[in-house]
Parts: sequence; structure tokens; C-alpha cells
Amino acid sequence: MAPVSLDTINPKVLKCEYAVRGEIVTLAQAVQEELKSKPGSRPFDEILYCNIGNPQSLGQQAITFFREVLALCDHPSILDKSETRGLFSADAIERARQILDQIPGRATGAYSHSQGIKGLRDAIAAGIEARDGFPADPNDIFFDRWCKPSGPHDDAVTDTIREGWNTLSHSSVSLVPYYLDEATGWGLEVSELKKQWADAKSKGITPRALVVINPGNPTGQRIIRKRSVDFCKKEGLVLLADEVYQENVYVPEKKFHSFKKVARSMGYGEKDISVVSFQSVSKGYYGECGKRGGYMEVTGFGPEIREQIYKLASVNLCSNISGQILASLVMSPPKVGDESYESYSAEKDGILSSLKRRAKTLEDAFNKLDGVTCNKAEGAMYLFPCIRLPEKAIKAAEAAKTTPDNFYCRRLLNATGIVFVPGSGFGQVLGTWHFRCTILPQEDKIPAVVSRLTEFHKSFMEEFRE
Amino acid sequence: MAPVSLDTINPKVLKCEYAVRGEIVTLAQAVQEELKSKPGSRPFDEILYCNIGNPQSLGQQAITFFREVLALCDHPSILDKSETRGLFSADAIERARQILDQIPGRATGAYSHSQGIKGLRDAIAAGIEARDGFPADPNDIFFDRWCKPSGPHDDAVTDTIREGWNTLSHSSVSLVPYYLDEATGWGLEVSELKKQWADAKSKGITPRALVVINPGNPTGQRIIRKRSVDFCKKEGLVLLADEVYQENVYVPEKKFHSFKKVARSMGYGEKDISVVSFQSVSKGYYGECGKRGGYMEVTGFGPEIREQIYKLASVNLCSNISGQILASLVMSPPKVGDESYESYSAEKDGILSSLKRRAKTLEDAFNKLDGVTCNKAEGAMYLFPCIRLPEKAIKAAEAAKTTPDNFYCRRLLNATGIVFVPGSGFGQVLGTWHFRCTILPQEDKIPAVVSRLTEFHKSFMEEFRE
Repeated sequence: MAPVSLDTINPKVLKCEYAVRGEIVTLAQAVQEELKSKPGSRPFDEILYCNIGNPQSLGQQAITFFREVLALCDHPSILDKSETRGLFSADAIERARQILDQIPGRATGAYSHSQGIKGLRDAIAAGIEARDGFPADPNDIFFDRWCKPSGPHDDAVTDTIREGWNTLSHSSVSLVPYYLDEATGWGLEVSELKKQWADAKSKGITPRALVVINPGNPTGQRIIRKRSVDFCKKEGLVLLADEVYQENVYVPEKKFHSFKKVARSMGYGEKDISVVSFQSVSKGYYGECGKRGGYMEVTGFGPEIREQIYKLASVNLCSNISGQILASLVMSPPKVGDESYESYSAEKDGILSSLKRRAKTLEDAFNKLDGVTCNKAEGAMYLFPCIRLPEKAIKAAEAAKTTPDNFYCRRLLNATGIVFVPGSGFGQVLGTWHFRCTILPQEDKIPAVVSRLTEFHKSFMEEFRE
Repeated sequence: MAPVSLDTINPKVLKCEYAVRGEIVTLAQAVQEELKSKPGSRPFDEILYCNIGNPQSLGQQAITFFREVLALCDHPSILDKSETRGLFSADAIERARQILDQIPGRATGAYSHSQGIKGLRDAIAAGIEARDGFPADPNDIFFDRWCKPSGPHDDAVTDTIREGWNTLSHSSVSLVPYYLDEATGWGLEVSELKKQWADAKSKGITPRALVVINPGNPTGQRIIRKRSVDFCKKEGLVLLADEVYQENVYVPEKKFHSFKKVARSMGYGEKDISVVSFQSVSKGYYGECGKRGGYMEVTGFGPEIREQIYKLASVNLCSNISGQILASLVMSPPKVGDESYESYSAEKDGILSSLKRRAKTLEDAFNKLDGVTCNKAEGAMYLFPCIRLPEKAIKAAEAAKTTPDNFYCRRLLNATGIVFVPGSGFGQVLGTWHFRCTILPQEDKIPAVVSRLTEFHKSFMEEFRE
């Protein structure tokens, strides 16, 4: 008798789905294996992963200064050796020393304080203050391994607010989704929030928190921040602000404004509204997904609730120290006058301006495709084009027992090696079809993406012409 | 209206407790702050944390070879520089190259395969094979951030087996505890397992898994492995084996035997029993708690259940790459003939033989205390002495609204700065009192621990003499 079978497994596990690593990606991995074992078996020779925000897997280079500091903190005994000065920049050596001095016994291999190393939290609070122009308290900072409230998430806060969710879909949390408005460039509308709120209430669900991504995923759209804050305040909702794309803004006139800054500038203080802001080392120009670093800034909870959040954080002991160090670095990068400042700035600007160009090239390419319309990417890392599929293609998808967007993405993958995520994994207005495409393939690969996609799309539309 | 109050918080959060970071540790942190702001205010000048297995926080040094490799993988661009050969050992450079070659694009900042980097899993499987003498499959290895099924745990497996638990006490999992037998040196008895099993069944609870720590926590006792395997097989239980103390064995005649090895040597194969073995970089002689690295070896599940475990692992994307690298290193350390072998062995043996001496000194000291008996530490990192408290002390604890063991530990902390964990946090036979003490303070601190403890105990027993 097997202890666990599909009959006895936790049924919530079966229901759990994660779009960006779903069926299409599994298929892509199989095709990749096939390319390795039977080269030449396909009309393409590599898989182009546009499914997930994983920049360094597609060739983006890590920021040198950050990696210098990490290496020195991993192996502090080389700090005082003369060869080290030939290998590392002076400010990286200095920064590593400062960080190590903030760690009791310089023990980068010890569990830290459950919220994270105090000196690193000081650096982050200072970075937030400099960014927002409002005070930030190091005791409000909790390091965590990824810090995204929307998908994989921080347990300590969400457990406190309600039940533990792991992904929402395999937990006892009720997810009340809302739509973004494609017509306004994926804008967030308060009327939509109110509609979904009322609908949930009528079903006996009491919403406890509003999750907003700022700048927005997919395309960094402007969101109605002030009205979201007012909505949360009026309805007694915790505002969970996923702010991991704060450095990914490609439109000069649109600056990043954190939700805490917006709330404070509206005159709402610590006692008026609960805002949790999430930041991660995985996105931005740094793209350090593999380091699993991030933090949340937890404001507007009473001391008795703070104590509970701290208790849950303690159960997890602490997040990995390298991730903590890296999170502090992205919030306190080299400054004008530091030895590394020039090379750091060049690396940063190179990455961000290239992302902007790639977004534009892909957007234009999508908009040239028959039946496809694509909003501009003003931020974040994705495009989310809308595709009007011929009735015949929709029928074919039905016959293949899948959704039309999945059908299209599967065909695209098999013909070109390009991996998109079907829109149905994210939720889309009934009867509309989309796919999500990252802007992350390196710039020299973008022409290939465009030409393969264009060619495929043409033949797909011809095949299913009515 | 505050969105979250003690009336509206998830009630499971309130119930959650984590002994090793509980009330006594919070008090210790307050006393530490006091020592900083008012030096000389206490009869001691430092807090001696004996509450948690956090070796490097108490001065244990990291293994040089491991840190060299980590630093080089963090900053690969120095690999080819001549200065690097003066700073790093040749085999660390070579190993870093090998590891980087196994990572697509050498991208240590990318999300890896959701189970972890394939080449690192190969190294771990080879290490398991060499240790056990039975085959291990890299596809059975899942890297995770901590890998302990007992406290903080791996979500992917436990979610699959039943509901997500975070710590058992704030989840919808029913914990069916069992006692270890103090008379046999904290032995695990099958009669006890059967008793708790029958008791659970009579309450309508169907146990799904048996969690065993091997070697045992607290004191590395021999556990009845074969009979535990048979019990799991007969009752259809998944065997979750916390094997993180596999290197912490201090008795030459008692070797570590993994549960998978035991099951295989009994003739049980993949189809006969489900065994999950957990290993971590936090314990052993490496003690790299802050790196949050570990893996589980998942055997004996059908492909449809494996697929579900993989899906949940994918939702978490991957564990941090440095932790993955470190976990592979502890399972494939330098070998005879490697440049680092001698220094590596000296570091390793130095730590383990010192731990053995510290355990013996503390054990002897405990056994000399009036009313205290202490089993020998044959492994792991702790002692769990039993203390017979005078009735007057028990009454005083009652008056102070706490348990007698907590009362003792609080008094000890206030008088000496020594931090023990009261036994009631771990569960102890009704009417007996214990505390858990790590053997981790550095050897030069042990005499102070012994003398302060001895002096305190004497005055405590005198104060409460009947």
C-alpha cells in the first residue's frame, strides 16, 4: 500500500497551478532535451525562454560591485591580503568590512536576528528614506527569501492576515481576483475593485488585504495609488504592495512612488493604514533571482500584531545572509565619488536602456502581427499582447482539449522554440486571449525572436483562416 | 479600524510556539541590550546562548575550502587572474570552475531548475552512494532552503502528504507526538510508536508520516531503525528522516546509517517504502546556518506523486544558489591528494573532537549538580538533563504563572547570562522537568558555563530547600 496516492494526496495540491512554470515550460524542457540528443531535429537550435523574469539565465551580467562585496563577505580572511587589492575595488573592500563589522563575530554563517542583520536593516531604512523623503524604521524591515506577496510570498505577513497560503490556489485563502483595464494600458480601476469587493461580500467572503503590484506587472502601468490607499483605508484592508519592479521604469516622466510614500503624502500615518511593501533582489537592473534575497517593510500594525509577525519570522529563523547583504546593497549602491561609481552606473544604465529598447522592438513587432494589439511596456519586464484568434483556431483548440491561448503557445514553441505564457494562467477577460512575453532575451537575440514569431504567426493565421 | 487585531488575526498564528526562540530568548535579548547600555548592571558581562544549534554565532569558524569555493562562484571573473592563485587553493579554484561549468551560462544569479542545479545534484547523489553503498538518483534530490521536517520544514513534501504545516502548531496538520525513553538514553521505542498510533486512530486521526531524527536530537541516541522501517511499511506511513546530524557522531563504535540504507539493506526497494531523507548545511562540522542550504532525497513515491512534489517545488522556484553549492560541497569535500585535504581534515577533526570534549565536560558538570541527571551525548549538538525540582520551587513557579522548567531557566538567565531552553517546549513526560543545552559555546567558554551554572544551581536549590 503506497502511503500517498492521487486518492489520498492533499487535494489542494492537485488544484495548485503556477502559470509561468506550467505545461508550456515542461514541454519546452522536453524539446530542449530533444535538441541535445537529436541536434537538427527541429527547425531551430535553441529554446528562447520568454516565460519568466530570470534575466541572468538569458545572459544578463551581475553588477560587479555587488558580487565583489558578496565574495569578500563569503571569505573574509582574504580582506587583509595584498593580492585582494589587485582583484577587488577599494570601495567593495571597504563596504565588505563595514558589513562584516555589523555582523556579531563577522559570522556570515550564523543564523541572524530573525528579522535580519540590524546593520543591514539600517542601510535599507536609510535607502527607503532617501527614495521616499519620509522616515523609515529599521525595525519595520523583515528580510525574507523572495518577498513577493502575489505569487510565492512572505509567510509571516500573510499567515497573520489570514491562513497560510503557499500559492493562493492550494490554500484555504479565498482569492478575489480583479481585472486590469487593457484599454488604459493595464490600468487599475477603483470601480473594478469595488465591484469585486461587493461580489465577494455577497458570497460571504470578507476581503482582508489588497495586493497591488507597483509599478504594475505586466507592463508597469500607472496605477491609481491614492484611490487604492483610500479604498483600503475605507474598507479596512491591509495594502500589500509588490514593489519589486521599482527600478524597472522606462518612461522618464513616470517615476516610481512607493505606496507608503503616497499614503504619507496624503497625511496618513502609522495609525491610519497598514501598508506592507515588498522589495526583491530578483528584479530591477540587478536580476539576482538565484540569490533569493528580499525584504518587506511592515507599517501600520499595532505592537501586539507586530509581535505575532515577529514570532512567525522567528519560526523561519532567518533568510540567507548573502541574500540579506545583496538586498542591503541594492538599496545602498555606490555613490558619486566612490571608486566603483562610474562602472556601476555604466552597468546599470546599460541594462536598463537595453531593456527599454528591447521592450519597444518587441512591442512594435507584436503590433505588426495580424490580429494582435500590444500595450506599451512602461516598466516591469513583460509584454502582454492581446490576440484575436480565428474561430477555426478556437475550434481546433477545443478539439485538442486546451484553451486557445495555450494552443497558440504550444504551436509557437514547437515551431520556433519561443516560450510564452498563455494569458489564461494570469486571468483575462472572458473571450479575450493573450500571452505574456518577457523582454529579457539579450539584445542580439531579439531579431531572431521577432522574425521567428512573425513567420510563425503568419503561417498560423493562414492555416486557420476562415 | 485596524485591518488586523488580536480578535481578527488568524487564530492558528496565536497558538504557534517555537521553543528555541521563545520567551527565554526574548528575555536574553533584552538583558543583552541592558548590558550594552548599562555595563556592569549584572553580575556577568555577556550572554551565553546555549539555546540553538547556531555554531558560528558562538565562534566556530567556517571550513576554509567551502568558503573559497563560494567566494569564487560569487565572483567568477577573478578565476583567471593571477592574483587569485595567491589567495585561493588550487583545488578550490578547480572546484569552482567545475561547478560553474555545470550552471548554464555560469549564471549563479539565475533561478535554477526547480529541484536545483543538475550537476550539483549529481555530486550529492554520488556522495550518498559513497556513504550508503546503495544507488542514489540525482532526480530524487530536491534542494531546499533548510530541509528539516521536524520544525521548519520542506513545504513540497509535507504539503503533498497532507496540509501545509509551517510549524505544526499553526497548521491544520494534527501532530501526534511520541516520547523518547530517557532510561535508554533517549531511545525510540516501537511500543511507544504503536501506543501513540492507536491513540490517534481512536481519536479519528489517520497518521500519514513518521518523523524520526537520525541520529537523534537531543543526544544522538541509537534509534531502532529497522523496526521503525517495518512499522512504517506495515502502517503505510511515509518515513521522514531528519538526518542533518549525520556528521555529529561522537562515539567511535556508533556509525551513521541513513534510513534509506537501512531500508535497502532489509531488501525494501523503491516500490516498498516511501523514505524522505533531509540533510542541511546548518549542522555537522560545517554549521553554516546562515547559508540556508539543504536538500531532501525523495524515494518511494509513484511518478504521479513525484510530479506533484515537483510542481510544488516549482512554485517556490528554487533555493538560493550559494546554499545549493554548499550542500553539494558538504557531500563531496576534498579528497586525499587534493591540495586542501590536509587543512580541511584538520579543521573538520578539530571541530568534531572539540564538540566531543565539550559534550563530556558539560555532561559531567550536569551530573554533579544536586538533583540533576544527564544522559551522555553520543551525537547531535545538545544535552537534555533532567532536573528534580524542590516542591517549593514548583510552587514558586506556579505563583509566577509559569512552568517549573521555565522558572528555573529564567532565574538562570538573570543570574548568569546562560540561555537554556525549558524542556516543556519540546514535550516531556508529565511531572518531569528538563532543559536543553547546546554543546556549542567555544571550548574556552565552557569552564565559565560550568562554574556559573554550578554556583547558580547551588543557591537556587538552597533558596527552595524544603
